[in-house]
Amino acid sequence: MEIERKFLIKELPDLGQYKYVEIEQGYLSTSPVVRIRRKNDAYILTYKGSGLMAREEIEAPLTKEAYEHLLEKIDGYPITKRRYLIPLDPYTIELDVFSGHMEGLVMAEVEFPSLEEANSFTPPEWFGEDVTGDRRYHNSNMIFGNPLS
Amino acid sequence: MEIERKFLIKELPDLGQYKYVEIEQGYLSTSPVVRIRRKNDAYILTYKGSGLMAREEIEAPLTKEAYEHLLEKIDGYPITKRRYLIPLDPYTIELDVFSGHMEGLVMAEVEFPSLEEANSFTPPEWFGEDVTGDRRYHNSNMIFGNPLS
Repeated sequence: MEIERKFLIKELPDLGQYKYVEIEQGYLSTSPVVRIRRKNDAYILTYKGSGLMAREEIEAPLTKEAYEHLLEKIDGYPITKRRYLIPLDPYTIELDVFSGHMEGLVMAEVEFPSLEEANSFTPPEWFGEDVTGDRRYHNSNMIFGNPLS
Repeated sequence: MEIERKFLIKELPDLGQYKYVEIEQGYLSTSPVVRIRRKNDAYILTYKGSGLMAREEIEAPLTKEAYEHLLEKIDGYPITKRRYLIPLDPYTIELDVFSGHMEGLVMAEVEFPSLEEANSFTPPEWFGEDVTGDRRYHNSNMIFGNPLS
């Protein structure tokens, strides 16, 4: 079960000091989500049940060959982004800087161990609008073009 | 973790008294296995890690719409079979009677709680050759044609 909130970014912090991974992902199905993802040199199949803030998530490993095979079957376009991991005690901010057809979008996700913690979270100053409930900011709604443009 | 043995059938028992389900399935990937399956009116996504007799298996529900969407992405042909469930205390035999391009094949699978039980299993008289290790009898090797013909 994954409990998370998503925010737009008002003002980017200095990112030079943080680790990042390069992510490429595509969707075989969007409801439920059946997603393939490359994270640097790791290849992962992900299933996500329905639900906006809390939903079941299953991950399983793929080989590079299986990933490339499945990449030919995805709906629409792949999504590419650089994900920075920024500690915000006791949480970790996942800051996604998109490239490709979503270039310009920067979004932060924070995962919580409970709905109570998610609801009582106070975002840092540099966070902007809370877009947790806005489907335009779901990666699965970006695959046929930029839903924000 | 699934531990099972597969057998050909020497002589079919009277099947009139047993329950069955109609199965249709297809493969998005065969190594690892990413499979979609319709079982009467249930739709399931299955992931299977590598390994012949014992391998990791994950199942997740699909909607009918997602199943039909993914069915357009499968490799090769779908596999169709009627699966009878035959009690053989303390086990249940899954007897698969294939149709479509695998018409004529009848195969039994028995699942075990441990490798020890799998290895000490005594097949009933009407079972034929043990084909557990024979890749031609993997459904995932039947999708581009009949590997037995």
